[in-house]
Amino acid sequence: MTPEAILSAMLDNDPFSQWLGVVCTHLAPGTCTLEATVRPEMTNGFGVAHGGISYSLADSALAFASNTHGQHAVSVETTIAHTAPVRAGDRLEAIATEDQRSKQFARYTVRVTANGERLAALFHGTVYRKETLWEGPAR
Amino acid sequence: MTPEAILSAMLDNDPFSQWLGVVCTHLAPGTCTLEATVRPEMTNGFGVAHGGISYSLADSALAFASNTHGQHAVSVETTIAHTAPVRAGDRLEAIATEDQRSKQFARYTVRVTANGERLAALFHGTVYRKETLWEGPAR
Amino acid sequence: MTPEAILSAMLDNDPFSQWLGVVCTHLAPGTCTLEATVRPEMTNGFGVAHGGISYSLADSALAFASNTHGQHAVSVETTIAHTAPVRAGDRLEAIATEDQRSKQFARYTVRVTANGERLAALFHGTVYRKETLWEGPAR
Amino acid sequence: MTPEAILSAMLDNDPFSQWLGVVCTHLAPGTCTLEATVRPEMTNGFGVAHGGISYSLADSALAFASNTHGQHAVSVETTIAHTAPVRAGDRLEAIATEDQRSKQFARYTVRVTANGERLAALFHGTVYRKETLWEGPAR
Repeated sequence: MTPEAILSAMLDNDPFSQWLGVVCTHLAPGTCTLEATVRPEMTNGFGVAHGGISYSLADSALAFASNTHGQHAVSVETTIAHTAPVRAGDRLEAIATEDQRSKQFARYTVRVTANGERLAALFHGTVYRKETLWEGPAR
Repeated sequence: MTPEAILSAMLDNDPFSQWLGVVCTHLAPGTCTLEATVRPEMTNGFGVAHGGISYSLADSALAFASNTHGQHAVSVETTIAHTAPVRAGDRLEAIATEDQRSKQFARYTVRVTANGERLAALFHGTVYRKETLWEGPAR
Repeated sequence: MTPEAILSAMLDNDPFSQWLGVVCTHLAPGTCTLEATVRPEMTNGFGVAHGGISYSLADSALAFASNTHGQHAVSVETTIAHTAPVRAGDRLEAIATEDQRSKQFARYTVRVTANGERLAALFHGTVYRKETLWEGPAR
Repeated sequence: MTPEAILSAMLDNDPFSQWLGVVCTHLAPGTCTLEATVRPEMTNGFGVAHGGISYSLADSALAFASNTHGQHAVSVETTIAHTAPVRAGDRLEAIATEDQRSKQFARYTVRVTANGERLAALFHGTVYRKETLWEGPAR
């Protein structure tokens, strides 16, 4: 399957990503860029987006970037630091890049920026690469 | 302010926690237990809850547990491993406990279980403890 | 092989552990306690032990605790926070305990204390459990 | 003080770095490159370098890179993944780069390569930036 077909298999019928309003603006083997706009119901009692919003966007970018190679990849450990507040109306962009990949494991950094200017979160994720492959009519 | 008053100050007018359906069932200095039930719109394309749901619940438990001491605490780094799938209808419970606390930093483990039986996620978080205090009429 | 035989297979002919002066004081499936005394050549320019000393002791405790089940276990990710300074002459104790274990992965916390009183480091490690087993005449 | 003077203040009278055989080959604000050669006494029972060796080199690179700005920086959390075995005789190179820096915190990635070819370890570190400055005759 092509990276696009794998993304489609992952994103179609994904209610949470629809709630987040996720859009994929770039996809290639080992990398993925997602965007979403923060809405008032994603914010917490301090007028800023809950940390779970940046995490969710980054975690999805990790999943898509790591599965584009055609091998099933599942998350093992993910770390996130929230480096600047995110507010309702902000446009978030999450760019996942591959730091390392071996037969069984791969590691990614996802940088989440707000409004194309400030770093909102820095995310690192490790995935386990199964032996099974994404398969389907488009392969 | 008491731990309960601090929790109330954090949870009141918190739209995202209301969307998650978060309920606090236990609160004491350095610890906090939260519960929420997974709904279909929290799941992804694989019929399981998005990793962001467990993260959000654990991150809130970290925030509440670390702020109960009366000093403002902000997250520095958070790590989560998703150890078992979570499905729509599952009742999640997140228990935050304090591993270490010094003047400026404190560290917590949050165990997220599903339906009181299996570990769904293991979360570790580090917070920076500011010099400012929670203040209000209830202190 | 028994946990003791596995430990012996790992520690025998281990020059770095001998340089560290590592002694194992407790071993059982999923747990391990190691001790070592900090010497002047383990300290850095600030009169305190280099962070690599606590890390090395904790990483060894992780390796021994995770391999005691008889299945080969290899480290995937390790995290350490240095929570108090360690000085030459301090006796370090590293206690590894198992937080979670599934077929392919297991997670451990290692608490490193100095002189049995203060927490010097808090370590978390994730291992991948191979399908291969420790084998030998003692099994 | 200049970055070089700060490095000198940290490395002079540092017995552990001398034991490791650390050499600094590049230093500039926010970045640092260190090198060291693995000796037999740094290996463990499997004929490969103990994970503590790569950690120690990376942790020193973090310390030097984060202190070059002239403000005292102390480690908060460090994470390392050992991605390929390191053997006696291998020349290790650790390159620290700055991922993010704000007033109080900064985050770095350290890539440790063996013999200039394969990635041996991937390290991420977060430091707290104190208000105190490195001071001395060379500033």
